Amino acid sequence: METFQELGEFGFIDRIAQHKQGGDVLCGIGDDCAVFALDAEWVRLVTTDMMVESIHFTQTAGPEGLGYKLLAVNLSDVAAMGGTPTDAVVSVSVPADLDAGYLERVYNGLFACAEQFGVVIAGGDTTKSPGPLVLNLTLSGKMLRDRVCYRSGARPGDRVYVSGSLGDSGAGLVLADASVSMDNVDLQFLIRRHHRPEPRVALGAALAKSGAVTAMMDVSDGVASDLRHICRASQVNAVIREASVPLSGSYRTFCEATRRRVLDLALSGGEDYELLFTVDPDRVDAVERLGASTDFPLVSEIGQIEEGQAELFLEDENGRRAVLTAKGFDHFR
Amino acid sequence: METFQELGEFGFIDRIAQHKQGGDVLCGIGDDCAVFALDAEWVRLVTTDMMVESIHFTQTAGPEGLGYKLLAVNLSDVAAMGGTPTDAVVSVSVPADLDAGYLERVYNGLFACAEQFGVVIAGGDTTKSPGPLVLNLTLSGKMLRDRVCYRSGARPGDRVYVSGSLGDSGAGLVLADASVSMDNVDLQFLIRRHHRPEPRVALGAALAKSGAVTAMMDVSDGVASDLRHICRASQVNAVIREASVPLSGSYRTFCEATRRRVLDLALSGGEDYELLFTVDPDRVDAVERLGASTDFPLVSEIGQIEEGQAELFLEDENGRRAVLTAKGFDHFR
Repeated sequence: METFQELGEFGFIDRIAQHKQGGDVLCGIGDDCAVFALDAEWVRLVTTDMMVESIHFTQTAGPEGLGYKLLAVNLSDVAAMGGTPTDAVVSVSVPADLDAGYLERVYNGLFACAEQFGVVIAGGDTTKSPGPLVLNLTLSGKMLRDRVCYRSGARPGDRVYVSGSLGDSGAGLVLADASVSMDNVDLQFLIRRHHRPEPRVALGAALAKSGAVTAMMDVSDGVASDLRHICRASQVNAVIREASVPLSGSYRTFCEATRRRVLDLALSGGEDYELLFTVDPDRVDAVERLGASTDFPLVSEIGQIEEGQAELFLEDENGRRAVLTAKGFDHFR
Repeated sequence: METFQELGEFGFIDRIAQHKQGGDVLCGIGDDCAVFALDAEWVRLVTTDMMVESIHFTQTAGPEGLGYKLLAVNLSDVAAMGGTPTDAVVSVSVPADLDAGYLERVYNGLFACAEQFGVVIAGGDTTKSPGPLVLNLTLSGKMLRDRVCYRSGARPGDRVYVSGSLGDSGAGLVLADASVSMDNVDLQFLIRRHHRPEPRVALGAALAKSGAVTAMMDVSDGVASDLRHICRASQVNAVIREASVPLSGSYRTFCEATRRRVLDLALSGGEDYELLFTVDPDRVDAVERLGASTDFPLVSEIGQIEEGQAELFLEDENGRRAVLTAKGFDHFR
């Protein structure tokens, strides 16, 4: 017998991805959203995420933040295709002894996020749980068919970009559980980056509209892991320049206070929910203009795409390269 | 503090239903599916169901049947609007020590059902569970906007119909756990009706197309409970004629063998996944023709709609009426 843990999540997804697709499906398993043709011009996007108590959250975290994040992580998936989110359905499995007020506060956080991003919560399913509180949200969106940003479009020579700053959420997760002596403003910024990630919906749509983006996804497991998905889907290599990885001042302070290497959580921390995308080298101006606008978060060029078989490298300031794995870059030191 | 159990599932749904709807939503919380306008002519349907180990199933039931049922119960919701199912996404939360082969068999059952009904499984989310196996499926469908069968369209004088036979699934649930001395063919029929409900997708679409149906839903909690939803949404009363409730021979045999009143599980047993619908009295011919066709299951007229404030009555052969509650009809005896 092989347990689910041994097979692993990605091993299991590979197995079920072999199920044949058809109908109006333009993209099934293997991207941030499933993509369906609505007509010759428009597509529908669908994504779903499950959050399970004691795996993804504990009840000590604020319930409003939990409801907010349930929608936000799905919004990030729609943003990663360049789409506009429209509506969602929510399933909850609830322990019988849970305070009904707690659950109502979860929904209040969800509704607040829905209002902020113009999403309708249109129904769902409510059921009892024998143990953990379980939440599932399925989000739909729409966009123009010829603007969809898949993971598979990166080409050698493309520039690799990321929005915002990396590692903040990973630091926030550490800080939520441990006592670290550092400035309270920095501390609150990092914890908030973990509990209230801002899905980059407006930026994603603007990037897709620009026509300059060749591949896009969101950063949920850390760039070291996620960029590999683009490389595999596109059959290319990628190089990240160590000095170009965008880091917030609060994150640098955290790394100093906890004596961590700044690149560890920045590349492998996860839950940043920033956009990771590749750009046609002849059209970087369009992307730089968006990043310079106050309507959008910062965007940073962190490396480039090269020919190859889905290998990732980290390059230091002297041009020396090390293989970058999902677990980190220890070969380098 | 009020616990979730005290508030109850419907109490909680009432609370969250107060959240304002908008956008392209034609119908949000409160029907079998959410309904969204795609354009002037077409709508999209969305429904979601969560199944939790030890609440909805145990691992002793076959994994293929579990996967089948996860999709089938959602198909039944799309059928209840009169729609055509198109695609689904699936989330699973998996205990680390679960046999990966078991989960693969769940998916095999799901894929078999998807193939049978022409549904594409287009992606999902896979995550660890600290305890129970949890499955969630969100199904989309489409149909013509002016054919959608809501719960709210029943009018005084309409006939109440139900497809197939009632009580079989409730009996099958009893038989799956208890030893009852009865013919094996009957026993297997009833257990199968519980584990492999046949969503009435073709019938639902044909009924919607006929234009004769004024309201429709699927029977998931038992007619005594579900017909009340139509009565509330339509602001009418309903009368069920005791002698007209369709019962299978196997179910009658089960009731004799276990000394049960035949109406108990038939009206309150749940999980029949038959269609419950009201028909314009001038157009019953169209519905009777469908029911007489070998392409569709039997349909039976079981009562009628009257003016009133969402009360249900059960009428015996002598025309005597008793109030029918979701818990049954004990006032009657």
